[in-house]
Amino acid sequence: VEQPEQAIARKPMLRALAGEVMTRPPIWLMRQAGRYLPEYRAVRKNVADFLELCFSPELAIEVTLQPIRRYGFDAAILFCDILVVPYGLGQKVAFREGEGPVLEPVRNVADLASLDPAPVRERLAPVYQAVRGIAAALPLAVALIGFAGSPWTVATYMVEGGTSRDFQTIRLWAYGDPEGFSRLIDLLVTATVEHLSAQIDAGVEIVQLFDTWAGILPEAAFRRFVIEPTRRIVAALSLRHPGVPIIGFPRGAGCLAEAYATETGVTAIGLDATMPLGVARDRLQRLRPVQGNLDPLLLVVGGAAMAAQARAILAALSGGPFVFNLGHGIVPQTPPDHVQRLVDIVRHG
Amino acid sequence: VEQPEQAIARKPMLRALAGEVMTRPPIWLMRQAGRYLPEYRAVRKNVADFLELCFSPELAIEVTLQPIRRYGFDAAILFCDILVVPYGLGQKVAFREGEGPVLEPVRNVADLASLDPAPVRERLAPVYQAVRGIAAALPLAVALIGFAGSPWTVATYMVEGGTSRDFQTIRLWAYGDPEGFSRLIDLLVTATVEHLSAQIDAGVEIVQLFDTWAGILPEAAFRRFVIEPTRRIVAALSLRHPGVPIIGFPRGAGCLAEAYATETGVTAIGLDATMPLGVARDRLQRLRPVQGNLDPLLLVVGGAAMAAQARAILAALSGGPFVFNLGHGIVPQTPPDHVQRLVDIVRHG
Repeated sequence: VEQPEQAIARKPMLRALAGEVMTRPPIWLMRQAGRYLPEYRAVRKNVADFLELCFSPELAIEVTLQPIRRYGFDAAILFCDILVVPYGLGQKVAFREGEGPVLEPVRNVADLASLDPAPVRERLAPVYQAVRGIAAALPLAVALIGFAGSPWTVATYMVEGGTSRDFQTIRLWAYGDPEGFSRLIDLLVTATVEHLSAQIDAGVEIVQLFDTWAGILPEAAFRRFVIEPTRRIVAALSLRHPGVPIIGFPRGAGCLAEAYATETGVTAIGLDATMPLGVARDRLQRLRPVQGNLDPLLLVVGGAAMAAQARAILAALSGGPFVFNLGHGIVPQTPPDHVQRLVDIVRHG
Repeated sequence: VEQPEQAIARKPMLRALAGEVMTRPPIWLMRQAGRYLPEYRAVRKNVADFLELCFSPELAIEVTLQPIRRYGFDAAILFCDILVVPYGLGQKVAFREGEGPVLEPVRNVADLASLDPAPVRERLAPVYQAVRGIAAALPLAVALIGFAGSPWTVATYMVEGGTSRDFQTIRLWAYGDPEGFSRLIDLLVTATVEHLSAQIDAGVEIVQLFDTWAGILPEAAFRRFVIEPTRRIVAALSLRHPGVPIIGFPRGAGCLAEAYATETGVTAIGLDATMPLGVARDRLQRLRPVQGNLDPLLLVVGGAAMAAQARAILAALSGGPFVFNLGHGIVPQTPPDHVQRLVDIVRHG
């Protein structure tokens, strides 16, 4: 049986998250398995529904591995979606072409009666089966990342009924009835711990918590609905799975990123593209390994503009523990050869 | 003829912007003239188009004065819209009910040929006529604020063709062809200086630059497309109209708010609701008077939650130069009596 130290030694991603300063940082990209890849589109066109892709282990394994084969990233990230957790809780979730996710919204405490965290592991079993297949297939130096949405971000979709522009419904509930809203957050903490724990049991070596909409909240609400639930998830996972690194990605946290980094207990912090590199280096990287933060639109533009910003990020952050990534997910119109160029810059300068 | 010192002495808003620490800070609210007021809706229902309301001086005067009559705010803000500048430049702008603004987009340098800043003052003459009427009608202690959108934010609407969720089109242009995109920014700097200068000539005593979408940019682009054009507008206005305070509102600027406050030369900085009060007090209020930052959704919720946050803001920021405001505009579903309650808290504790 391999010792954890051996796995860390041969996986650059695990070394960086353990605090090692690398000559060349590891690289992976959020949404690296996705529509910008022709081989992904070829798989996707044969399934009717996006969730069907997440719940078909053979297909999820295939699309997870595609970018590893093409680019040799230092980490694979399970192909899945943050909305499998509401699905696992019993909420109706659909993905409509060109429209994004549509959920039958929950908007008050009474609505929560329809949600049950008990069957989450069972309902999401195909996801963990995919994890086992990916773990078995990955090259030895490549780490496997599992993930979930953070309770606040998942709750925005559950309450708004999909993507929102202004998040008014959820804020009115959270501000006007914080005790009732906290019951939804509590349900999500429970379900998220189960979902991530099951992924780890099946073979993921790192988990990332995506908090895409962390940045819309004032400080008091950020502390209550972003930091505190994240802290509880990190504490529960650390007890059950000591040593498994947890990356928190509080997109748009701005001046509250420092509080998030220290108070949640996450191993490392993901930075969105608006985080100034000076702040990232001087305030955040002192506290934790950092990950980020090229604007995905610069990856679409490519050329000198992309290269200059990628080099600026490397110059600022390579002096401490660091994982190169984007500041948000790859967008579908990204030319695949721009991704190769970025990998070359990070690997070879 | 009244001396400027006399005007400042009797207007709390001007005193706070001059750096005075007030026992009770002045208060006004972004979008205080608007759909949450029944008297506004009564005027609005008689005009076909939103722009018609902006360009009918009698009506613009009336709706500007409505919240002053009802609440006795310390400042009136001209009723207008940031998209009158693209209209003045010759772009087609329409407001469709329930859909927001729709513009015929400009997306490259060739498209800019259709835009001309020369006739801005003439095309927007009815706006300045409204300013004269408001200035003549305001109570002596109430200051009159004029405004414009900042070039970056106005450009988002001009390039995306309306409100956007992801701002991909404008970012691709700005990152991929920064020289060409800068020509649009330059046009907007020129037109914005003219538009604000004309408002000041007609009687506004303060101007605010709304940069609603400042928060989506990485640092390098923020410096080039937010800070630098704002600095040029501030410099030009300060030459033509020395002593007229300029409030900058870079919504979502996060960790870059300090750079914005010092490098643009604005008199005061507006804070959105996500700005932590500790940062506002310790880092920003040391540099400039600050304005903000109650979440508008807390004004909808009202009651103890609103009162607690309003008092937290007052406790944090009343020790320095400060103007009480929201962190963004009032939303239409706000109960008017919640606004009265907020004014009472700020005025009487």
